[in-house]
Amino acid sequence: MNQRVAVPLPKAYLLLNHGPTVLVSSAHGGRRNVMAAAWNMALDFNPPKVAVVIDKATLTRELVEASGEFVLNVPSREQAALTLAVGTKSGREIDKFSKDGAGSVCAPGNPLARREVESRVCRDSGQATAASMVGAPLIEGCLAWLECRVIPEPHIQQTYDLFLGEVIAAWADPAVFSNGRWHFPDAARRSIHYQAGGSFFATGDAFEV
Amino acid sequence: MNQRVAVPLPKAYLLLNHGPTVLVSSAHGGRRNVMAAAWNMALDFNPPKVAVVIDKATLTRELVEASGEFVLNVPSREQAALTLAVGTKSGREIDKFSKDGAGSVCAPGNPLARREVESRVCRDSGQATAASMVGAPLIEGCLAWLECRVIPEPHIQQTYDLFLGEVIAAWADPAVFSNGRWHFPDAARRSIHYQAGGSFFATGDAFEV
Repeated sequence: MNQRVAVPLPKAYLLLNHGPTVLVSSAHGGRRNVMAAAWNMALDFNPPKVAVVIDKATLTRELVEASGEFVLNVPSREQAALTLAVGTKSGREIDKFSKDGAGSVCAPGNPLARREVESRVCRDSGQATAASMVGAPLIEGCLAWLECRVIPEPHIQQTYDLFLGEVIAAWADPAVFSNGRWHFPDAARRSIHYQAGGSFFATGDAFEV
Repeated sequence: MNQRVAVPLPKAYLLLNHGPTVLVSSAHGGRRNVMAAAWNMALDFNPPKVAVVIDKATLTRELVEASGEFVLNVPSREQAALTLAVGTKSGREIDKFSKDGAGSVCAPGNPLARREVESRVCRDSGQATAASMVGAPLIEGCLAWLECRVIPEPHIQQTYDLFLGEVIAAWADPAVFSNGRWHFPDAARRSIHYQAGGSFFATGDAFEV
């Protein structure tokens, strides 16, 4: 696990304010999963809340509804291939955390694995780490992590696939986020913004007005 | 008005997918307003839907609730000062579209105006243009525009300041978005991502995985 430092809850919204694509991790009943979500946003400052869209067809949906918890992980540019892969393959077909499973995104035989073997998730032996407040894991190599408890709103969950969560713990790699500001050190360790069809933008230059 | 071309509705989500900060414009009963919103996201593909947070204290909230309509305008880097200004000052205090009003963001005497006189909204004589389907205006100089009709969800509007909208028309400057992809030509004409305290990120390099 790369280094992580607690982010004070009133500053947790800053981890999502600039609109990065996130990985949603989840766990329930001995199963765990991770998917990509470009459709996420902060919803409140303090207590911090978030909103994220989780499609009915996903295993993530099942695990989030059963556990009432999820983690939003902010991936780095070097995890873009992983982000695409976990956003493409369903956890119903593959164990995304397995290094050896035939369908794993980390397995060399998998068409997606060509990219995945480059990713930190597959390089590291421990691809995920226990969170502090929720059962969902923290994904290795990310820039920041928001541990969330679902705020039950059955109508909008069912009608729009829209989930609201309260952030109950937040973490960031101090090399990229400290004192309430992102400060990306290089081209690789910066957040990403999904466009479509395997195309991303990196978070660009910071500037003040 | 810079050039704008209709974006097919099933591709409208692409205008927000990478998480830019937007300007929310609104109008009702002869009043109009514009505010900044980092907390926005796409919510569905087709028919396209969006979600955006609109605080109870804002004039925008009053106008959006009264009209049932809003426009999400995607500002460019050269509009960052404008974005900060309209996100700082309330439409209850100033007419943000006025060139001469004592409190206008465009007025030279206003503390915010120092930045604003640089902005396209204040340079151009017509700072806003009529939309095609809604009463809310399209803000000059932006990169893209999503005309939205509120999907009434009183409970989440009241509880979370969360508004859902169906996109009923979408537009983009073809110099920056065409065939379903953003292609920013230079440092100025690209989207922006608000951090905090007057600090933004520009949308950075595009890359494929």
